[in-house]
Amino acid sequence: MNTFGRYFRCTMFGESHGPALGVVVDGCPPEVPFGTEHLKPLMERRRPGKSPLSTPRDEADEVEILSGIFQGETTGMPVAMIVRNRDAQSSAYDTLRDTARPGHADLAYHQKYGYRDHRGGGRSSGRETVSRVMAGALAMQVLATRGITIDSRVCEVGGETDPDRFAEVILRAKGEHDSVGGILEVTATGCPPGLGAPAAGKLDAELGHAMFSIGAVKGVEIGSGFAAARMRGSEHNDPITSAGYVSNNAGGILGGISTGAPIVVRIAVKPTPSIAQPQQTVTMDLKDTMVTVEGRHDSCIVPRIGVVAESMLALVLTEALCEQTIVQGFRSRSG
Amino acid sequence: MNTFGRYFRCTMFGESHGPALGVVVDGCPPEVPFGTEHLKPLMERRRPGKSPLSTPRDEADEVEILSGIFQGETTGMPVAMIVRNRDAQSSAYDTLRDTARPGHADLAYHQKYGYRDHRGGGRSSGRETVSRVMAGALAMQVLATRGITIDSRVCEVGGETDPDRFAEVILRAKGEHDSVGGILEVTATGCPPGLGAPAAGKLDAELGHAMFSIGAVKGVEIGSGFAAARMRGSEHNDPITSAGYVSNNAGGILGGISTGAPIVVRIAVKPTPSIAQPQQTVTMDLKDTMVTVEGRHDSCIVPRIGVVAESMLALVLTEALCEQTIVQGFRSRSG
Amino acid sequence: MNTFGRYFRCTMFGESHGPALGVVVDGCPPEVPFGTEHLKPLMERRRPGKSPLSTPRDEADEVEILSGIFQGETTGMPVAMIVRNRDAQSSAYDTLRDTARPGHADLAYHQKYGYRDHRGGGRSSGRETVSRVMAGALAMQVLATRGITIDSRVCEVGGETDPDRFAEVILRAKGEHDSVGGILEVTATGCPPGLGAPAAGKLDAELGHAMFSIGAVKGVEIGSGFAAARMRGSEHNDPITSAGYVSNNAGGILGGISTGAPIVVRIAVKPTPSIAQPQQTVTMDLKDTMVTVEGRHDSCIVPRIGVVAESMLALVLTEALCEQTIVQGFRSRSG
Amino acid sequence: MNTFGRYFRCTMFGESHGPALGVVVDGCPPEVPFGTEHLKPLMERRRPGKSPLSTPRDEADEVEILSGIFQGETTGMPVAMIVRNRDAQSSAYDTLRDTARPGHADLAYHQKYGYRDHRGGGRSSGRETVSRVMAGALAMQVLATRGITIDSRVCEVGGETDPDRFAEVILRAKGEHDSVGGILEVTATGCPPGLGAPAAGKLDAELGHAMFSIGAVKGVEIGSGFAAARMRGSEHNDPITSAGYVSNNAGGILGGISTGAPIVVRIAVKPTPSIAQPQQTVTMDLKDTMVTVEGRHDSCIVPRIGVVAESMLALVLTEALCEQTIVQGFRSRSG
Repeated sequence: MNTFGRYFRCTMFGESHGPALGVVVDGCPPEVPFGTEHLKPLMERRRPGKSPLSTPRDEADEVEILSGIFQGETTGMPVAMIVRNRDAQSSAYDTLRDTARPGHADLAYHQKYGYRDHRGGGRSSGRETVSRVMAGALAMQVLATRGITIDSRVCEVGGETDPDRFAEVILRAKGEHDSVGGILEVTATGCPPGLGAPAAGKLDAELGHAMFSIGAVKGVEIGSGFAAARMRGSEHNDPITSAGYVSNNAGGILGGISTGAPIVVRIAVKPTPSIAQPQQTVTMDLKDTMVTVEGRHDSCIVPRIGVVAESMLALVLTEALCEQTIVQGFRSRSG
Repeated sequence: MNTFGRYFRCTMFGESHGPALGVVVDGCPPEVPFGTEHLKPLMERRRPGKSPLSTPRDEADEVEILSGIFQGETTGMPVAMIVRNRDAQSSAYDTLRDTARPGHADLAYHQKYGYRDHRGGGRSSGRETVSRVMAGALAMQVLATRGITIDSRVCEVGGETDPDRFAEVILRAKGEHDSVGGILEVTATGCPPGLGAPAAGKLDAELGHAMFSIGAVKGVEIGSGFAAARMRGSEHNDPITSAGYVSNNAGGILGGISTGAPIVVRIAVKPTPSIAQPQQTVTMDLKDTMVTVEGRHDSCIVPRIGVVAESMLALVLTEALCEQTIVQGFRSRSG
Repeated sequence: MNTFGRYFRCTMFGESHGPALGVVVDGCPPEVPFGTEHLKPLMERRRPGKSPLSTPRDEADEVEILSGIFQGETTGMPVAMIVRNRDAQSSAYDTLRDTARPGHADLAYHQKYGYRDHRGGGRSSGRETVSRVMAGALAMQVLATRGITIDSRVCEVGGETDPDRFAEVILRAKGEHDSVGGILEVTATGCPPGLGAPAAGKLDAELGHAMFSIGAVKGVEIGSGFAAARMRGSEHNDPITSAGYVSNNAGGILGGISTGAPIVVRIAVKPTPSIAQPQQTVTMDLKDTMVTVEGRHDSCIVPRIGVVAESMLALVLTEALCEQTIVQGFRSRSG
Repeated sequence: MNTFGRYFRCTMFGESHGPALGVVVDGCPPEVPFGTEHLKPLMERRRPGKSPLSTPRDEADEVEILSGIFQGETTGMPVAMIVRNRDAQSSAYDTLRDTARPGHADLAYHQKYGYRDHRGGGRSSGRETVSRVMAGALAMQVLATRGITIDSRVCEVGGETDPDRFAEVILRAKGEHDSVGGILEVTATGCPPGLGAPAAGKLDAELGHAMFSIGAVKGVEIGSGFAAARMRGSEHNDPITSAGYVSNNAGGILGGISTGAPIVVRIAVKPTPSIAQPQQTVTMDLKDTMVTVEGRHDSCIVPRIGVVAESMLALVLTEALCEQTIVQGFRSRSG
């Protein structure tokens, strides 16, 4: 299932070493300004090869818009966007043809789909997130028409919470042929109250779905998160005044519906599984073996995931905005 | 959006103080044994009024099956089930008619839908989870045909991890007109490898969606969860041997696909927001006021949520099992 | 798949001889007036047992609304409605337990689902249309808020086009232990331009889906229909003036989008397959046999299908209205 | 809504004069042989510029596969395919910038989406059918694994039923600056019994949806079609014997489920609305004017629609095959 959303539908495709990756966004309202100028800054943040902290795979990641834009605005028709793979070095993966990399989807994909595209993980590669960022860029343009903005920050890297020391922690892990994870916080401000719907449409449920769909995410918190489990009700309830909510343990969502307070989500990112150390594993026909994952890999993907998580938050909010537009459209008429 | 699932579709409805709550399960395969005998034990676990620890609202919660079952088995037709509300004391809510309870969806619903069913929270009440347990009971019967079983346990209540002291913690909070939250762990064993699909269909994404759709859940972890953010790759990767995975930091899911190891999910439940203490809040027209939430409320809903979380896990796995059946059905033919 | 619609989602359930039939309508906007008074006149038109022309099965078909309505209006929550089966005479079907009735779904259901509910066709019975009429009644209330009205008329019965002779044609067929079909025309007036979307969302595509989903429908035409195949372009194109469309060969839809002209659909209904004549058929294990279908059956269902077809048209238009509300909501903001 | 299907999901995009048209097929089972060799013969049948009977717009329509294929087979990942627009002569449409062509979607699109891509109809152009044929080619490969084959024939052109005279009828209309429509019959043979599901999933409903989604289709018949309305039940019911159905008025579908007999669908195609004659119309701001549609247009698109209708039939059957695979997969296990 490669489609996110029911109203604002983003269908993604592409493999790490195939010809191209892309996304089709269907259900985007017309008259939203959109072009490569809105894509570039976000794509740049996700792009590899920029710093010694990330993989040296060098992809320009230039987006080509194939449909749905006319004279600099959306038309209401599906917006298709693609990015070509250019610097794929598939031969580097030849030694992995029959070996399951620990912490990766290799074996699971092989068992499910019957063979596997060994070239860089195929569709299970983190490279698929380019599709998410392209869709996210469009979603953010939709949100901008309502004054909603999205931001993120790295809270922790490898257990370290001082941003000044993040690079150091990553380089140390890299030097030891190892990797580290971390924690990201993503926020949306300017959200109106009323985004979200009951049960399966709860805004927090959609956020849980979106965030856990990012590879390497092992935990998601909204507002107070796991700390809520240790609080009293009297402490956790956010008092309400005519000026707004006094605190934000709710993370901007009550009963699955946005309250108007900032939406706050935190995600836990596991350490990159590709490490240049010998690891115990099996071949695709389940024989014991060892593997050392060479190749060009990030020792920490937390910084690059920020823009992906922002994109997913943007998709969820745009989806909810479409749903809310129906409710409001009828209410304003019937009143 | 009150439907969960694309293949195994559970559409839920009903309000806390309306005539009935229910669910329609569409897409359930035929020839699965199902009847009230499969519903009773699960409904009983969710049912209020059983102990001094839970709300005294006394609902028999007897399920009536309206369709889709013939001679003790599913027919492939939609299975509709309802439960009548009997002990609803709507008048207890009259004083809350124009007041937003902190920590509840009251204000958000009012702002979105234009007025609100003040009687016990309407659809945003935790009572809606009876629909989830009914659907879950059917899903568990489907899973049973493949040898998959589901379980849960309370890990923490109000910060306390010793199960012998949970009751004490809850009763103390109750005595102080307050409430506590906690942490639950839900597991599935016997899952074959291959459940889940890329991107939006990732098994962990679907679990994130399902768990965050339960009211009061503020955090979700899979496998190592937030601890992963502080581990090294060499430590987090689960070594694979011909005998299986040596550890289970993955929580049974890699790349969004089940590995065959047990699936392990933990959820953080916030303290019940209904507390009999004066709290700062607003009226529906946003004037400052105070509210004390009287009525019949749990001081801790963690124990009663166990069966709800198990049900949601069952829905997600059954959904994935249907998808996997397509892939396998074609592969066995084409081979 | 028992759900119609993506925005205005109607999930239907129930068998001819089970406990009840029903529908859950999810995505209905709030503040739409609705109650049994809106259901009664439509249900009455579909109800059997009213005249010598229809089956004597006597069902009061009283609707019970289980959720989603508060103080006479929709709340935005799912509206669940059920009708109990009361006059089901299942024993009348005992002789059909192992025999496939020609023109019915008996054999196909048996081959697909492994056994069959022989009691009146189970879910494949025309009795399932009560769910459609309940949902249609709600949809018509939504349409009424925009001034859209729906109507139908019988154009032909058994090849006869003079309405004064329809009863005669039907009674003659009945007397000969036979049945007749006919043609219905369903229209919507007051539709704004702009309902419908490209490709799979085309209004005519959705109408084709909705109308062919009614049992016994073998053909569907929009506007000029099959006659269009014999016209020249110069003849078929509807000239446009500042006062509107001069003709309506389009049937109110161009490029899948409503033009503002009346929407006109015609459906061909096959003769009822249940006839009290010996017919060649097979048993469920494919042995040759003969069958005479006794029981209480309409000799012509065309008149009773009118309200069902109107209901389906109402569902399609309400769905399109929701989609159009999103487009308009964004356009009015961005302008 | 540019996605067809729930299990076998085809998301289409592209405009007549934009950079490219394409489709993403998600949910295709793995291990299905597929490549450009399967696309070419179908694309060639749809391609314009081949004969004096069709538009001289010359498009090679070479398909580029962007994802989802590895070593000549599907992988279970989304298959994305695109075709570049090369011979688009947008300037030819400059005179139409503010004029609504009768019989086209111009005005309706303008009224809905706020402006319009005047270059050849944008997304409402018949050129969008290249996406359908690409998806259809893949679907036919899936069907081939089960021995299902699809065919079509032109039954009528401009009222003429003798195939030897079709070219003559078309050329005569062309010479008179006019156009003609016609009737196509599409069939599937080798379908197993059991394809289709109740209510919204009925095979005939899905076919009605698919066929009416093709531009220019004004009527759809299954099996006996409109003729059924004039038949008696005794005449219309297809007798069943142990050797199969004696006749096929049902068109291979009963109760929405395939019977195993050939599936037979007929569609009525309206005459091409683009004609080089002066026609009464309005400007986009609803002022009266006249228009003569110059440019490169087919005088009859019936022959070129054959492969499009076959493709839509293939999509519907593949979708149903996926659903049926779930039912069968569980039944074979539980038995």
